Amino acid sequence: MKNGIIISFEGPDGAGKTTVLEQVLPVLQEKGYDIITTREPGGVEIAERIRDVILDVNHVAMDNKTELLLYMAARRQHYVEKVLPALEAGKVVLIDRFIDSSIAYQGAGRGLDKDIIRRLNDFATDGRKPDLTLYFDVESEIGLARIAKNAEREVNRLDLEKLDMHKRVREGYLALTEQEKRIVTIDASRELAEVVSETLHTILEQLAKNE
Amino acid sequence: MKNGIIISFEGPDGAGKTTVLEQVLPVLQEKGYDIITTREPGGVEIAERIRDVILDVNHVAMDNKTELLLYMAARRQHYVEKVLPALEAGKVVLIDRFIDSSIAYQGAGRGLDKDIIRRLNDFATDGRKPDLTLYFDVESEIGLARIAKNAEREVNRLDLEKLDMHKRVREGYLALTEQEKRIVTIDASRELAEVVSETLHTILEQLAKNE
Repeated sequence: MKNGIIISFEGPDGAGKTTVLEQVLPVLQEKGYDIITTREPGGVEIAERIRDVILDVNHVAMDNKTELLLYMAARRQHYVEKVLPALEAGKVVLIDRFIDSSIAYQGAGRGLDKDIIRRLNDFATDGRKPDLTLYFDVESEIGLARIAKNAEREVNRLDLEKLDMHKRVREGYLALTEQEKRIVTIDASRELAEVVSETLHTILEQLAKNE
Repeated sequence: MKNGIIISFEGPDGAGKTTVLEQVLPVLQEKGYDIITTREPGGVEIAERIRDVILDVNHVAMDNKTELLLYMAARRQHYVEKVLPALEAGKVVLIDRFIDSSIAYQGAGRGLDKDIIRRLNDFATDGRKPDLTLYFDVESEIGLARIAKNAEREVNRLDLEKLDMHKRVREGYLALTEQEKRIVTIDASRELAEVVSETLHTILEQLAKNE
């Protein structure tokens, strides 16, 4: 049996990664790949409960370290209950946000120590990293404009933070792309069809390597 | 202005620490000490929400690492919102369970790495430790018998299954008492009045040092 693999979708808000993930999924399934898609924080009941605590708009008093620890708790539970069994069954796991989001958001964005975040990531996933990470890069002004346009959903606590945070998060991601060979940068400022096409190509290359 | 101090109450279930805390409180207040009492996990709204996730009986799938990270998240928020402001106001903080519970329960009890737990404790409290820790020691058979008695029932099969965990937790605490000078062991197998009396004496000695 093949080993399962993890492909993570990363990027600042408004990069379009979730939309791209939804569009590549049916194409990959048609090609016969056994795929599960999931997201962080959440994906399993306990992690969804933790997600509710993180995103509750009333929780303005939430400390940055508390937030990080909650993300890690959600990551751990999601990893053990959903990601790991899928990997063991040889599946392809497409995950919307994973370990790099913590480095970009809580590290670069909130200013927490990145080494501690790395250690917590390792603790949460027993050291497992994605086999491939797609980083959807978009300038902050474009990303934020897209969020405003798409805002047909409830505004959550994290949306209330603005341009400066978005820029720091993007810088955090760009620094990661220099450090981690597994990360492929995709220019997400282009038309959706182009972004989807490049994403598919990159994923299929990775899957071919894994055969 | 005096510095605030932290006095933590620790021990396995059934040691009686919560009852003792309730009994020493009015005596200390009568002597004019400015005291707050609190508990972990919980004590502030966000931490109470996290407590609910931890203690939810439906969450049988909860991984040990998830549980540890949730305790740490609750600790962080409680520390920042409640303990730290009290310390800055020069108060005496009596806290029912704190950093040592994680070493004893998640470390010795559940078998997670104690070094990682220590690092997480330091992360959650910015390295702040209690000035005094009262460890209420009781043999596991006595502790479990007390829990059953308080619940007005016989010792049942589940209690006996808990005996092994209870013993590991106690061993974890006993190991801590060897390592940490701030911990004073109180024999909690004696009559409540005796336990309260020794606890008061130990606390008053610490408070006198702090004048």
